[in-house]
Order: sequence, then C-alpha cells, then structure tokens
Amino acid sequence: MRLLVLNPNTSPSVTERLAAVATRAASPGTEIVAVTAPRGFPYLSSRAEAQIGGAIALEMLAEKGGDYDGAVIAAFGDPGLHAARDVVEVPVVGMSEAGMLAACLLGRRFSLVTFAPALASWYEDCVALHGLTGRCASIRHLDEAFRSIGEVQEEKAEQLVALACRTVEQDRPDVIVLAGAPLAGLAPLVADRIPVPLVDPIAASIRQLEMLVAMTPRLPEAGRHLRPAAKPNSGLPPALSRIMAGR
Amino acid sequence: MRLLVLNPNTSPSVTERLAAVATRAASPGTEIVAVTAPRGFPYLSSRAEAQIGGAIALEMLAEKGGDYDGAVIAAFGDPGLHAARDVVEVPVVGMSEAGMLAACLLGRRFSLVTFAPALASWYEDCVALHGLTGRCASIRHLDEAFRSIGEVQEEKAEQLVALACRTVEQDRPDVIVLAGAPLAGLAPLVADRIPVPLVDPIAASIRQLEMLVAMTPRLPEAGRHLRPAAKPNSGLPPALSRIMAGR
Amino acid sequence: MRLLVLNPNTSPSVTERLAAVATRAASPGTEIVAVTAPRGFPYLSSRAEAQIGGAIALEMLAEKGGDYDGAVIAAFGDPGLHAARDVVEVPVVGMSEAGMLAACLLGRRFSLVTFAPALASWYEDCVALHGLTGRCASIRHLDEAFRSIGEVQEEKAEQLVALACRTVEQDRPDVIVLAGAPLAGLAPLVADRIPVPLVDPIAASIRQLEMLVAMTPRLPEAGRHLRPAAKPNSGLPPALSRIMAGR
Amino acid sequence: MRLLVLNPNTSPSVTERLAAVATRAASPGTEIVAVTAPRGFPYLSSRAEAQIGGAIALEMLAEKGGDYDGAVIAAFGDPGLHAARDVVEVPVVGMSEAGMLAACLLGRRFSLVTFAPALASWYEDCVALHGLTGRCASIRHLDEAFRSIGEVQEEKAEQLVALACRTVEQDRPDVIVLAGAPLAGLAPLVADRIPVPLVDPIAASIRQLEMLVAMTPRLPEAGRHLRPAAKPNSGLPPALSRIMAGR
Amino acid sequence: MRLLVLNPNTSPSVTERLAAVATRAASPGTEIVAVTAPRGFPYLSSRAEAQIGGAIALEMLAEKGGDYDGAVIAAFGDPGLHAARDVVEVPVVGMSEAGMLAACLLGRRFSLVTFAPALASWYEDCVALHGLTGRCASIRHLDEAFRSIGEVQEEKAEQLVALACRTVEQDRPDVIVLAGAPLAGLAPLVADRIPVPLVDPIAASIRQLEMLVAMTPRLPEAGRHLRPAAKPNSGLPPALSRIMAGR
Amino acid sequence: MRLLVLNPNTSPSVTERLAAVATRAASPGTEIVAVTAPRGFPYLSSRAEAQIGGAIALEMLAEKGGDYDGAVIAAFGDPGLHAARDVVEVPVVGMSEAGMLAACLLGRRFSLVTFAPALASWYEDCVALHGLTGRCASIRHLDEAFRSIGEVQEEKAEQLVALACRTVEQDRPDVIVLAGAPLAGLAPLVADRIPVPLVDPIAASIRQLEMLVAMTPRLPEAGRHLRPAAKPNSGLPPALSRIMAGR
Repeated sequence: MRLLVLNPNTSPSVTERLAAVATRAASPGTEIVAVTAPRGFPYLSSRAEAQIGGAIALEMLAEKGGDYDGAVIAAFGDPGLHAARDVVEVPVVGMSEAGMLAACLLGRRFSLVTFAPALASWYEDCVALHGLTGRCASIRHLDEAFRSIGEVQEEKAEQLVALACRTVEQDRPDVIVLAGAPLAGLAPLVADRIPVPLVDPIAASIRQLEMLVAMTPRLPEAGRHLRPAAKPNSGLPPALSRIMAGR
Repeated sequence: MRLLVLNPNTSPSVTERLAAVATRAASPGTEIVAVTAPRGFPYLSSRAEAQIGGAIALEMLAEKGGDYDGAVIAAFGDPGLHAARDVVEVPVVGMSEAGMLAACLLGRRFSLVTFAPALASWYEDCVALHGLTGRCASIRHLDEAFRSIGEVQEEKAEQLVALACRTVEQDRPDVIVLAGAPLAGLAPLVADRIPVPLVDPIAASIRQLEMLVAMTPRLPEAGRHLRPAAKPNSGLPPALSRIMAGR
Repeated sequence: MRLLVLNPNTSPSVTERLAAVATRAASPGTEIVAVTAPRGFPYLSSRAEAQIGGAIALEMLAEKGGDYDGAVIAAFGDPGLHAARDVVEVPVVGMSEAGMLAACLLGRRFSLVTFAPALASWYEDCVALHGLTGRCASIRHLDEAFRSIGEVQEEKAEQLVALACRTVEQDRPDVIVLAGAPLAGLAPLVADRIPVPLVDPIAASIRQLEMLVAMTPRLPEAGRHLRPAAKPNSGLPPALSRIMAGR
Repeated sequence: MRLLVLNPNTSPSVTERLAAVATRAASPGTEIVAVTAPRGFPYLSSRAEAQIGGAIALEMLAEKGGDYDGAVIAAFGDPGLHAARDVVEVPVVGMSEAGMLAACLLGRRFSLVTFAPALASWYEDCVALHGLTGRCASIRHLDEAFRSIGEVQEEKAEQLVALACRTVEQDRPDVIVLAGAPLAGLAPLVADRIPVPLVDPIAASIRQLEMLVAMTPRLPEAGRHLRPAAKPNSGLPPALSRIMAGR
Repeated sequence: MRLLVLNPNTSPSVTERLAAVATRAASPGTEIVAVTAPRGFPYLSSRAEAQIGGAIALEMLAEKGGDYDGAVIAAFGDPGLHAARDVVEVPVVGMSEAGMLAACLLGRRFSLVTFAPALASWYEDCVALHGLTGRCASIRHLDEAFRSIGEVQEEKAEQLVALACRTVEQDRPDVIVLAGAPLAGLAPLVADRIPVPLVDPIAASIRQLEMLVAMTPRLPEAGRHLRPAAKPNSGLPPALSRIMAGR
Repeated sequence: MRLLVLNPNTSPSVTERLAAVATRAASPGTEIVAVTAPRGFPYLSSRAEAQIGGAIALEMLAEKGGDYDGAVIAAFGDPGLHAARDVVEVPVVGMSEAGMLAACLLGRRFSLVTFAPALASWYEDCVALHGLTGRCASIRHLDEAFRSIGEVQEEKAEQLVALACRTVEQDRPDVIVLAGAPLAGLAPLVADRIPVPLVDPIAASIRQLEMLVAMTPRLPEAGRHLRPAAKPNSGLPPALSRIMAGR
C-alpha cells in the first residue's frame, strides 16, 4: 500500500524527518510518499495559520488525487482533517488524533509536551475537537525561542526531557505524547529518561492508517462524512476546484 | 461605528438580505458595510467548503483592514471565526455563536432549524466548538432540494414553520434559532406561528458586536487570542500575506 | 425603550452606581429606571440571602408591572432570575448571565474576580446554573474585609487589579469578568493594567437586554418559561399575590 | 431524635400524608414533627413558586429553631434546600435529593414520574442542581388536570402505574422515583405492578436524615456551607431576621 | 434484619474493626454478621487485586446465600459490587458508593483521604464508575509505608488529620471521606480537628443498606440488574457455580 | 512478534474464529497464538460473569507469562483489561477498546450492534469505562434467542444487517462496530449492505497491538499502570499467585 505523508508546511527539513520516521514505522509492503506544501508557512502555530494551512492541505490532497491508498496530515493540530474526510475517497488520519488515540491504549490520561508556547491554545482546541478533553491531563510547552524549526528537536531535547519529567510529577499523566511534527523520531531516543510511556504521533499515524486501509472501509452513504453534493465554485486552484465540483 | 458584514460566499443576493437585516437591527449611529466573497462557493454546506471559505474570510478581513470597527462572519457555522480573532485587531463575531448565545438568554435549550440536510453535521461541530452542546436540544433540517439560495427563504417558509413546530413538540427546546444566512430576516415574519421565541442570528450578531465595540476590549497580551508572532510566508494573497507576516 | 435596573438589595449607593453605568452603556433612545429593594439586605453573599433576595426581586418586578420593556436583575448571582422569567411578560436578564455570555464572545474561558470570599461558592453555583462551568477558568476573590459596600470599588481597586493579573497568570483565562454589582463601572478604569479583556456585567446586561427587547420575542406557549397556571395563594405581598394568581 | 418534616406549602392534607409515611419509615426512637406553611401556595409547580416557597421554608426553619435534630424539606424540587444549609445548624435534606441518591444505590439511571406537566421543567433544574443529570434517564408526567392535591394519589394511581411502565419500556431506567410530595406512600402500594424498583422519596429522606444526625457532622468551618457572616437586614419576618443577623 | 458485612480480604483484624463500627452504626433490631475472605490478599490496592478480590466476594456471597437480608462489600473501591447486584437477590451496597453518596448530602464536593499511594488511581476509577467525578474535589494519600494493615489507623492518625486539613485548604472540598476499610471508626475520633464534616463509609453503608432493606425493592424484571439467564459453567467453586447456573 | 489472542471463555469454536480473523489481520512477521479459557463460561453476558471471566483472564495471562510480546483480551466488554495492565509486562489491548478507538478514526459517533439483549447494559459500562460515552450514538441488540454461540454469526447475519441499517437511520452513527467475539470476521462479509463503515474489533485489536509492541513502550515507573508492590496471597492458582506476589 502507498501512504501519503502530507506536510502542510513549507519546511522540507521537517518533511524529511517525517518521511524517515514514517518509513521506519511502516509494515513490510507499505510505501511512504512524503510531500511538502508548495506555499504557506514554515510551520503552523495559530488558528489563523491552521485555517490557511488546512486549505493548502486540501489542495495538496486534490493534486495527488488517486495516487495513494491513505494519507496522514502531518502537522500536530490536524489542520484540514475533517474537511479532507468530507472529500477524499481514501482514509485520512491526523497526526494528533492518531497520537492521542494511541495514548488512550496506554493509560487513562495523557499529557502533550511541545516546544513552543503559541501551540498550547491551538492544541487545546484540537483535543476538544476529538472529544478527548477528559483524557488529557495537561498541555505543556517550553517557553524560550528556538533557532530553527528543522533542528528544534536536537536543540531542545534536554529541555523537553526535563519538561516531560516535571509534567509527570505535577500533572500525573499515564502517557506523554511528544506533540509537533518537528519532534518526529525523538520518542525512542529519550524514552528511557522519562518514567511513563512516550508516543511518537507520526509512528502511531502510520500504523493506524495501515489498519484503516486494510479494513477498506467503504465510502459512507450516510453519516458525518457523506460526500457533499458537487457544487460550482470559482477562483480555487484547479485540482481543488475539480474535486469540490465533483469532476 | 462602522461594522463589516462579511459574506464568505459568492452569492450577492444573500449579501443583500444580510445587509438589509443588519441595517434594520443596528442602533442609531451604526453604519453597516456588507461585502461578498470574490471567489469560493455560492454557499457553504460541508466542513471542506468551510475550510476553504474560512480562509477566504481571512483574506477578505485582511483586504479591508483598518476600515471597520468590528466584523460579523455571516455564514452559519462561523467559518474562520477563531482564526480571525487571532489576527484581526477589532472585535469579530460569528453568526452562529451570536445567535446561540442570544438564545441562551431566552431559555435553557435551543434547537437549530435549517433548510438543507448537508448542514446538520457541520452545524453540530459548530455547537460543540462553542461549548454549547449541553444547551442544544436538536438540529433539524428540511429534506427536499431547494431552487435558489437567494430565495430559499420564500420558497421554504411554510415548510420551515411546520418543521419548527414539530421540533418544539418533539425535542422540547425553549427557543428556535433559524440557522443559515439565507434565512436572515425570516424570524419576525413567522414568529407568531411558532410557540417559542425565535432568534434571527444576524440581528443578534449586530447587537452583540455593537456591545463589544462599545466595550472597546483591549488587544489581549495573554490568553487564547494573543496575536501570533509574525511569520514569513509564501504564496498567499498579498493582503493576507502582509497581515500574517505582521507587516 | 424603558429598562428597569433592579437592585434586589437595600443599598441606594450601589443602585446609583448601577444607574450611572447603565445609562452610559445604553443606546440612544433607551431610558434607564433604577430601583432599590425596600427591604432585605445591604448586599447578598450567601445562598440563604439569595433565596430571600430573589423573592424580594419578584415582589419588586410585580410592583412595577407593565411599567418597563425589560429588566436587569442587578446582583451578581442572578437571584430570582429564572423565577422572574416564569411570570414576567417582558425580557429579564441577569447580570451574571449577561456578563458571562459577553465574555464567551471574547474567549474560551473567563475568570470571575470579586471582592469578598463568601461570594465564591454562591457564584460557582451560578456558573453551573447557566451551564457555563466548562467555560469558567476560575473564581477568585479578595480575602480581607472591606469598609463599605458603596465604596468597596474605590477601596479595593488596587487589590482587584493585582488579583486579576495573578489570575491571568495562574489560571490562564482569556477574559476577566469583574463580578459583583458594587464593581459596576470599574472595568474601563483599570482595563489598561490587565493583560486580557475585561467585562463589566452591567454594561453587558443593558446591551443584551436591548437586543432582546428589539427582537420582541413572543411570550412562549411551550418550553421552559411557559407561564404557570394561575394559582390561589395566601399571605404574599399584594402585587406579587396578584401576579401569581394570574390577576 | 426529633425530625422536622417541613411542608413548604399550605395543604394540610399533604402534610398529613407526609407525616404518616415519615413515621412509618422512621427507626425506633425517632420522633416525627410535621409542619405546614402558614402562607404561600397549596403546592409548588414553577420556579417562581419555588423561589417564594423556598423563602417561606427558611422562615419556618427559623421559627422552629433549636427544636429539632434534623429537617426534611418535603417538596420535590427541594425549594430553599441549599439556602437552609447555609444557616441551619442541624442536618437538612431535600426530598428530591434524598430520593434520587437512594435511587443511585439501586441502578445507574432513574426516571422521575410525576403527576403534572408544569413540574417537568422545574424538576429538570433540580436534577441538574444536584449534579445527577447523567444518572437521570427521563422525567415523565401525566398530562391531564387533577381534582385535588390532597387526593391526586388515589385519583391518578392507575395512570401513574401505566406511565411508569411505559417509561421503563421507552426510557430504560433501572429505578423509578415517584416524584411529588402528594405521592408519598404510593410506592409500596403499586410496586408489584412496575418492573423496576420504586423509590418513595419521603421514606428515603427520613432514613438518610437519621444517618446524618447519627453521624453528628460538625458545623463546617470551611467549604460551601460555612455560615455566612451575620448581616443587618430589614423587613424580614422576626425569626428569619434574627437568624440572618446572627442573633 | 440481618446484614452481612463482607470483607473481601484475608485480614481478620480489619473484619473486627468493620464489625464493631457497623454494630455501633446499626439501628435497634439490626444484626450484623461479618465475614473474612477465605483466600486472596490481606488488603486490596490495585485493579488486578480488585479483579480477583471481587470474584472472591461473589463466591462469599454465594456461599452465604439466603442467610442475610442485605450485604455491604466492605472494601473501599467496591470490588465486585455491580457483579453482585446482577446475581444476589437482596440489596448489596458498596462501601465507597455509600460513603460518597452520604457525602453528597453534606456538600457539593468531597475529597477522599486515604493511607497508601497505590490506592489513588484505583479509587479514581471507582469515583468515575459511580458517576461522581464531578463531585469529587480530590483524592489524597499519605506517601510513607505503614507497618500493619490492622493498625494503620492508629499508626497514621496524626498524618491523616494533617493531610485532611491540607486537603481542605488546597482542594476546597466541603466534606472529607476517610477512604479505606482499615480506617473504619476513625472519623468520630478526629472530627473535631478537621474543619469540614467527615464521613465514615462503613457507618454510612449500614444506614443506607437498612434503608434499602426497609424499602424491600422488588427484584427487577427490567433494567440494569435484571438477573442474567442461567448459564452452564465449569471449574467454579461449588456455591458460585450453582448461583451462576441458576440452581 | 508473537501475539496472544486470549479467549476468556470456554468455547473453542469462538477461539478458532478469533484466531482465523486475527491471523488474516496480522502483518507479515506476526505470529498469532490463540488460547481458550480452561474453566468459566461458554460466553460472557453480565457483569457477574465478567468479574469471574476477568479473573480467569488474569490467570491465563499469568500461565503464559513470558511467552508472548502482547495480548488481546478477546471478549467484547474487556473483562480484566485494566487489571491485566497492572501486572503484565507487555502491552495488552481489549477488543472493545481497540474497536471503539478504531471507530473514532472513521467518524464522530459509533454505534455498537450486537446479538443478545443481556449484553447492552454491560457494554454501556464498558463504553463509559473507556471515557467514550460522548462518541457512542447507541448500543443496539437483537431480541431473539440464538441456537449456538459458535454459529450465531451465520444464524443471525441477516438480522444483524437489518438491525445495523435501522440503527444508521434512527441513531445516525457514522460508524458501526460489530460487538461480540462470536461476530469476528462478519464485517467484511456484510460491509456492502450497510451504509456506513463497519469495524471488526478483533482485526482492529491486532493492528493496534502491533503498533504498541513496535513502539516498545517502557514499563511505567509512574502513573496508572505502575506495577503494584508484591503482596503475599493465599488460595490463588499457582501462576497467578506467583505474579501477584512478584515472584
């Protein structure tokens, strides 16, 4: 099976990390194709950026239409996820949704640990969107600026470990999710220094997406993700316009 | 004060209705400026369309920057609302948020009554987004197709009244919100045929927006709508690019 | 339109403050009539006092029957509010309900900041009564006694600002509501010293009440605030007895 | 021990029933004293009547001060209950609270079955007030008028049994609470005709009140029912005025 | 009436304490029979132990079948409680359920205070199982090891008082429940040193069980605790096998 | 990797089905080992049976200790799941937990469809235990008896399809979970006759368990599934006794 790892941002260094972790996590026989947004932001850290980034994710999915068996939207916060499920014909998972559901298998409450303050309030919305507020012990973030989105993982590894340990002590989660695409691959490197299980959301995404593709869930004819009726539109990028117009 | 009524869709006939109702609802001294989306969809009826429409709403707000004291995003479902609050410096309200909060002043539980089936599942997300699930008795919709978005109100008035009455009997709301921008102005015409109070969300939006503008709430330096740090970006429409880059 | 600002307490100095703030907040064409309770307590700070004060508010509304287009029950905690809606034929809003709903337009979570410890537990019930527990970040109060209910605002302004700032830092609300009728008018004076928007609940009440009166919601023939059947009664003050007996 | 069964209404026939059922339910050594409201309504069926009736209950408790070891407020809906706990020095239970908590011992979800439509919306508030919404399967009522509050139990027994059976079938509660003081004593007479356990709330109140009195819980010096500071007041009935003024 | 106090653990010293407190709490005419588990653990402190201990409780109830009018499962955490209600024909209450419901009569929020860290996470599940999460302010425990389960009460009394006082100050409960069978009888000894009411769950259990037995609730023919159909089984202890097979 | 599919019941025909479906669902390189309970019930349909069956599941896990990389407790209702996580050193998933979390990836609300009425109330507890009540649209069951647990799938396929379709129409779930181990493997056979995606919980369990094993989550040193301290015990089956005593 062929899975699309879609980075809705413009940082190729992050896409490379995502591709490497996804490839390592995939089962034999799964091919990973990673793509970087052709426009937009280097990374997303507000609802405003997520509104725009989510629309760009839709464009990217439309561009690649027919070319993959499933897709991961690989930005924590899941920009455009529910929108994508309305119009894409194969399974789509979000990195935060998949990471948090994996955490639910390991304990009653998880905490999200991330690297930038701006993210906390947006991630909080994301937890609520997935109906998981009751299982989220806390959302914690580092406070200092970072130098480069592509290397924030190496730059901040020590501080993230210290923050995760403090979070376990103060908020009592059973599991920690390392939140943020730039942190992909960090979990196994630091797991032995944190007293509860760690989840790498991109690894979790790939395995859960494989599960969905293997289940070949039918296109719904009822329920929430019933395809919307085709609708004329104007001024949209061509591939997106076609998919929204049902052509 | 000068209030922007922003129709994130491309149907000028709906904008005209919105402008008329908004003008009627406004206090003396309030000027209403209504604008229609330059691109996009004739109306929104799915999360996918809302993802795109919300990004277009952001573009429109950026284009008009500095030219208004407050704005209403005038599509039920509030596309782009929280994104807008992250970057716009004046108060912004959403039509569904304002309509539902007004309903809360009139009873414990409201029902939404709308004209198209596709809307129910998206509106359900919208209710949850505003934390009002516990106050929403039901979301009800007509099942048959309509002829024209600009005249759906006249075409379906009888069926909407009948549906509202059935909703009161079966779901026991205390208030009905007529949901959907194309229904603006219908409430006072049919109020005497429905046994509970009706809310017209666009009228409610204008009054609540006036309240916020009069309070002149300060730009937050903390909390959820703290402005995100300026960020380089590429490939966005010029005004939007500027606002996101903090220029 | 003529709006009643009903102080269910016996402190005329508080009524005067309320009247001044309400008049400033009202739109052109709105007349404010403020009344003070003829008996009861100088201010309310327990459920026991609210039970009695709410019954006195009903008496006052009955006394003034027919003489106003809408009423605000102007004690934070909304004593008698739902009772009033059962029997009064024009819109009635509660000061805390209106203040908290206005706060909902400005952020996901608000904190209440007030001046006396006894109030916190009663206000907590009030938040729950309005179904807003999920949107309330905290209820904070000063701990020291105050000298005079009529001047507590001036006496405690500095401490309230300090407390509001601490609340923002520790509880992370997006908005602060200055809770308590004696604090009416304080918000604009201190807004520039607190890093999130402030809500003055009495100003919010007037604007929202104007909205309801303008909507002329019909008397419900179904739902929660259906008038109760007239019922004989004995030993009640005359105006209240008449209204309860449906005379 | 000496327990006060306080009927906040003016119907002595209901008080007699309550006294009989309470006496039958009491343990050896418990004395029941039943009192009828000196003014107010023959029965309560709205929030407005409950606001007034609750204040009358406070007056009655103040009048009888020192003369009982515990009290039951014997109107379903618990008018004045939390207010009473703020000022009365012995345990006070509410008939609906006690009935619903007893039902919680018998199953996950209870339904309330009552005799008059006006009651449902008020009882719904009462369930929420006690934080038991998640355990309430439904609130069901008869629709037809009744002849006399003192004999509604005999008049409507057949219809109540039929309604309870329909409720079990349609709403799937595990337990039925017969709601309303005038139904006191009905449960054992009809229990064998209803497929789930029945709770008589007044019997449950007496037993739970005995438990509280036996525990001799101390007067709180912290928490929700900390006595409010004494406060001057004016125009209140003498005993109530004294208790509120801390004299 | 004859009530079984069932200690699902193997410590006779704890059973003796339970029997003494239960006897003191019982009304005249109630006989208390206390039994100790013939196998299992000296006390329970994990979900794994509770799974096994709950099955042993079922065996014990089956062994004693027909010999009692009601039973208390006397381990905090209520191991086997809902299972017991499925198959035992007389009322069964759980010590934590009864203690927490009694606490609900004394305030809005209770805290559990216990003597060992391992208990907190299991008790948290127990609170959720009973749908009382919204009324639980906190679960607090001592951190140091104890010498003997039979005398932990005497050994730790001072630390428990100090912890309860800290809990009142920091978590603001209205009531404290002393959680854990080995603490039975401690509440009245220390009540005057803690500023909110204390609940002894075993005393509360006896009184509530007496209430249920006096109500003689019928065996349900519908709802949650409908007897399961008899089912063949193999390898179970004889009495348990018989009751499960409906013999 | 080697995964244990643990049937806590005594029906080998069900184990065979489970093994076949699990083997089909597993990735290349995963070995499935299926085991049948040596004692207990042919299937579980009440909380009482689950209490016993869960303890038997613990015994079986202890017996096989060290011989597998992960385990599925393969009875819908997850008997013994949280207990197992307290003491087993490799990942353990429950069939209902895994099925419901997979459904969460496909829509907002799922319904459970099962074959026997007794199951509904137990499954409802299971949904609550996993904190997923807000995502469960309904639990529906067939009403008629079945002939054989091993062939209930073939016998009732038509009725289950009809019930699933009625459920979609009336309760509006986005996904259906076919609940009950004896239904393993039915989903792909009937998927094209039901208008929303179907989840086979055993297939979902295997894939999610593979994910957890691949993540090699560390043994927690904090949080909910911290190993309990070793504890002496008596009268338990030898392997279980050893594991509980930490030997």
